[in-house]
Amino acid sequence: MTSPTTSNDAEVQALRREVCALHQELVRWGLVAWTSGNVSARVPGTQLMLIKPSGVSYDALTPETLVLTDLHGTPQQDGATPSSDTGAHGYVYRAMPDVGGIVHTHSPYATAWAARSEPIPCAVTAIADEFGAEIPVGPFAMIGNDEIGRGIVDTLSGHPSPAVLMAQHGPFTIGPTPRAAVKAAVMCEDAARTIHLARQQGQVEPLPPEHIAALHHRYQNVYGQRTEHSDPTEGRNQ
Amino acid sequence: MTSPTTSNDAEVQALRREVCALHQELVRWGLVAWTSGNVSARVPGTQLMLIKPSGVSYDALTPETLVLTDLHGTPQQDGATPSSDTGAHGYVYRAMPDVGGIVHTHSPYATAWAARSEPIPCAVTAIADEFGAEIPVGPFAMIGNDEIGRGIVDTLSGHPSPAVLMAQHGPFTIGPTPRAAVKAAVMCEDAARTIHLARQQGQVEPLPPEHIAALHHRYQNVYGQRTEHSDPTEGRNQ
Amino acid sequence: MTSPTTSNDAEVQALRREVCALHQELVRWGLVAWTSGNVSARVPGTQLMLIKPSGVSYDALTPETLVLTDLHGTPQQDGATPSSDTGAHGYVYRAMPDVGGIVHTHSPYATAWAARSEPIPCAVTAIADEFGAEIPVGPFAMIGNDEIGRGIVDTLSGHPSPAVLMAQHGPFTIGPTPRAAVKAAVMCEDAARTIHLARQQGQVEPLPPEHIAALHHRYQNVYGQRTEHSDPTEGRNQ
Amino acid sequence: MTSPTTSNDAEVQALRREVCALHQELVRWGLVAWTSGNVSARVPGTQLMLIKPSGVSYDALTPETLVLTDLHGTPQQDGATPSSDTGAHGYVYRAMPDVGGIVHTHSPYATAWAARSEPIPCAVTAIADEFGAEIPVGPFAMIGNDEIGRGIVDTLSGHPSPAVLMAQHGPFTIGPTPRAAVKAAVMCEDAARTIHLARQQGQVEPLPPEHIAALHHRYQNVYGQRTEHSDPTEGRNQ
Repeated sequence: MTSPTTSNDAEVQALRREVCALHQELVRWGLVAWTSGNVSARVPGTQLMLIKPSGVSYDALTPETLVLTDLHGTPQQDGATPSSDTGAHGYVYRAMPDVGGIVHTHSPYATAWAARSEPIPCAVTAIADEFGAEIPVGPFAMIGNDEIGRGIVDTLSGHPSPAVLMAQHGPFTIGPTPRAAVKAAVMCEDAARTIHLARQQGQVEPLPPEHIAALHHRYQNVYGQRTEHSDPTEGRNQ
Repeated sequence: MTSPTTSNDAEVQALRREVCALHQELVRWGLVAWTSGNVSARVPGTQLMLIKPSGVSYDALTPETLVLTDLHGTPQQDGATPSSDTGAHGYVYRAMPDVGGIVHTHSPYATAWAARSEPIPCAVTAIADEFGAEIPVGPFAMIGNDEIGRGIVDTLSGHPSPAVLMAQHGPFTIGPTPRAAVKAAVMCEDAARTIHLARQQGQVEPLPPEHIAALHHRYQNVYGQRTEHSDPTEGRNQ
Repeated sequence: MTSPTTSNDAEVQALRREVCALHQELVRWGLVAWTSGNVSARVPGTQLMLIKPSGVSYDALTPETLVLTDLHGTPQQDGATPSSDTGAHGYVYRAMPDVGGIVHTHSPYATAWAARSEPIPCAVTAIADEFGAEIPVGPFAMIGNDEIGRGIVDTLSGHPSPAVLMAQHGPFTIGPTPRAAVKAAVMCEDAARTIHLARQQGQVEPLPPEHIAALHHRYQNVYGQRTEHSDPTEGRNQ
Repeated sequence: MTSPTTSNDAEVQALRREVCALHQELVRWGLVAWTSGNVSARVPGTQLMLIKPSGVSYDALTPETLVLTDLHGTPQQDGATPSSDTGAHGYVYRAMPDVGGIVHTHSPYATAWAARSEPIPCAVTAIADEFGAEIPVGPFAMIGNDEIGRGIVDTLSGHPSPAVLMAQHGPFTIGPTPRAAVKAAVMCEDAARTIHLARQQGQVEPLPPEHIAALHHRYQNVYGQRTEHSDPTEGRNQ
């Protein structure tokens, strides 16, 4: 385990602060009820991750209460029990080395699509920008073994979307950073709501594949800042 | 009546602060309009309860304004009139000795199911986790006698769900603590909304009973913290 | 005009503060977009009223910016132009001497019923409590003469409901005090939303008339406080 | 480029503060998710505009981070990259000299109508007031050339509505000032939601053309303040 005086430890402390703050974004954007969502981050260059403690309210969450575990979910310190979704997060980090952050919520509109096992069609430009395709559905999987993690990895590997709707469960999103994964969770709920509303009063047609590809390429490579003004991982190089 | 200098009285003061703070959670999670929801708590080891005063706004609510009554709703002090739902709360405490807290709201999605007298099917994992079954409907009952309390007790006795949708009225939730009952009220509205949205665009199937049982057992026994990091009554031993 | 040093003027100042604060309740409960709602109050014992200035944002509203007019809408001071709905408010105060406050919004669910000219059925206990009947529809009326005011008065005179849905326009609510009228506006939107949601997935039946009458009588006469703990005009003697 | 000590520069600084504050209104009224909306302002009397930097969160936005560009989108300073929608904003300012502010969002209800390429009928008085007609649909257009700008200009030139729903994309709104354009964006979402809700349970009829014209004329010419109490460009002379 890392000594508290190494620079590596300072990096973990900074990551704790960021992941703690990102949980507040889940509340702010209406993605969670009570304690029902979590954010994790891979500690760069290690086989470790930080994740929400199980059942702790967002008000009570502090950087220190986040749990440091290895990528099999074993805590690296005494203290709080990690999220019951820790196994799924670890599976994804082990299988997808470019993933630096993962978010899971039961956000209402995305979970409604998941309850029907129905993908969200790519029918407006905002979905093409962020997801580059329809938002896909993963299998129904029970908690407590590798089923959920394998379902996420099988669905998202080689897919442009950073979000998967796990059947009769809810969305998981990934990103190169935890902030990018939170953004994907916010945009997934926004997409789920907009297309839900649109379809309540008529048909919606997916955009043509060539338009989806062009919009996605532009958004991932041109949108955002190349300077210190914003997180360069957000919205491109994803 | 207890003297203000006994330690028992200190316990009541702490409970007053907690129940007052829990009313703000009803506002925060969008469960109430104006003054239309209330939280009560059994005073542990006594035949007394604390409950919201009738018609007082959540802004004006303070720990001191909560009303201490016996379990037939008789105030134990001069001052404010207790909630018009006090009789129903007291009936439940008398009949269900493991109940330590009760919440009643007219939260919009849950009340919409109640208006149709339709139970909420257990079609996503979050409902299995918290409720262990569909969320059941209780009878229509008029206020002012034991009808509402009896309808709650008859519906929830021996049922895994901590929530009942009273027909053409709204949800009541119970828990071992008032905080657990508030959590159940938040999750009940979340369940009602998610399945409402899901069914607007197609069929949803309940989860298989063996999956519901396994998810509920795990959530009630594994989820959450066994230490001081969170309320151990929340999400297990319920 | 009243001199600033009379006690009557102190009463007007207190009323200005209350009406200003009540506008924030319209924002808090989601009843308004931008500047699209207003509250007025009769100055007790006079032929005067206070009303929102036209087109002023809720952030910029202060007690002093509220406009004092007679009951025909003529400002009693130099300064801001009163709400374009002032004529309707004044008509109601002239015709209904027990009305002490009026609220108008375009709150989304209530306005949706108004857009279809459809009354909201009294299908849950909360609607019986506050409205004592279905929430009725008033005629379509153009702004700028007495049409709107007359439509409100004709619909609500002798009707238990403090709310009317003006066709293809939106709700107006009345009360013995401006606070009671704001409460009715909040509860009207809540009723409109709950029954909208309920009907999206099936039929809802109105409560039997004898139950509606009993619930309304109890709520208007028993609910709330008879002491200084809350506004006695709220929820009874209405 | 302007020297920081000229009075013109003070005017630009004031405009930066205003445009920065107006972005918070997009958040407050629920029009945006993450970074998905932008406000721009023409610098009066120049060929310049201020616009949101690309991909910057609303929390991180400061007056200084707004980007000053010419009306072809070329930045006039080193620093942040302007919004990817800058080309569309500039096209509109070049073609419509009375436009002083432009807003683009993906607000959920308005974007739902846009996803179906369906105009919002003018069926309640609030839509007649602000828009003077149905809210029209513009063509589907790819980002990155003049297509979007031309679609906005072709649809809104000579049309009373300050809002256009760009097909499978979302709403753009214009105004004589950036504040008027933000108001139009708020009212567009409100209109989209109200008529969506109304049509979910029945038919809605547009208001008669003569009533729409009368309401629009009155609102644009009588509503609001003629004094310092409010922005005179809001709600009239638009």
